[in-house]
Amino acid sequence: MMKAGLVEAGEASKAMLHPKKTRGLAVFDLVLRLLAIAGTLGSAVGMGQAEQVLPFSTQFFRFDAQYDDFGEFQLFIIVNSIVCGYLALSLPVSVLHVVRRRASGKSRVMLVFLDTIILALLTAGASAAAAMVYLAHNGNSAANWFSVCQQYTEFCQSVSGSLIGSFIAMVGFVMLIILSSVALSRNH
Amino acid sequence: MMKAGLVEAGEASKAMLHPKKTRGLAVFDLVLRLLAIAGTLGSAVGMGQAEQVLPFSTQFFRFDAQYDDFGEFQLFIIVNSIVCGYLALSLPVSVLHVVRRRASGKSRVMLVFLDTIILALLTAGASAAAAMVYLAHNGNSAANWFSVCQQYTEFCQSVSGSLIGSFIAMVGFVMLIILSSVALSRNH
Repeated sequence: MMKAGLVEAGEASKAMLHPKKTRGLAVFDLVLRLLAIAGTLGSAVGMGQAEQVLPFSTQFFRFDAQYDDFGEFQLFIIVNSIVCGYLALSLPVSVLHVVRRRASGKSRVMLVFLDTIILALLTAGASAAAAMVYLAHNGNSAANWFSVCQQYTEFCQSVSGSLIGSFIAMVGFVMLIILSSVALSRNH
Repeated sequence: MMKAGLVEAGEASKAMLHPKKTRGLAVFDLVLRLLAIAGTLGSAVGMGQAEQVLPFSTQFFRFDAQYDDFGEFQLFIIVNSIVCGYLALSLPVSVLHVVRRRASGKSRVMLVFLDTIILALLTAGASAAAAMVYLAHNGNSAANWFSVCQQYTEFCQSVSGSLIGSFIAMVGFVMLIILSSVALSRNH
């Protein structure tokens, strides 16, 4: 009983001594989440709008390319939408960490848990799409897969561009996880 | 001065109250690292040995497939080797966390930092390779990329199999990061 009292007194005084240190981290956490929302939303929309129709056609066939010709690009849109949704749902928790003077360790650990899984998901989706973009640009002579970007230059440009948002969001998540662990190491 | 004394007393008594809780986590951390070493090493070696020569040839051409026909598979081996090397280097730190009764927060934060970056690297490498394996199996009719696995069945099987180790290691890393954050939230 005596010991428990000491622990609480110690923790409370420590939290009062460094209230701004973790608040700064919490604000940065919120900013990173907003940045990652913008990145993933931009990626999903950019990929969804990538389409190009070539200015010639045969009687039976129209030459066009769009994202749903490639399973990896469909996956990319789905993954980015999921991540964007998760980020929107995690915003209230992040705001709570800014507002409350002493954030509980449990909500931070939960955020690290979910952030890590979402980081893996986002990285997987973005890398699979990047591998396909690379192949579309360069082809693979050993497998007789020819570059499609020589015909569909515009399509390839928009697809390549839409990857950027995802990679920005990935860097954001890595920083988020590190921030949370720093906050956890300080805020107890 | 009085407050500082209270903080230290509180922390020390808390650490003495729960010494086994974080030790169990540290042992699990070590086991996960050993598992991930086995996984990434197996993946790198498995991919490196994947080769198949078809039982026919023309005067000018021998039909064979091996990992270095695909840039993504070369990348896969490099990434798995880097991750395996990092894990080997991180073992002493992990052992230190088991041996020492109160591990410092700094070494844990450093591990979370590096683990997160390495998780992103490993996921990127494994996903790019998985995208190529998927394409080798199924082809893509829109881009006129035909499946190569109909001829190179054995090659495709060994390549697909070698992905497993990487994905086991990925799950290991996600658990490592979560474990570290739980340990950080307890051990202060």
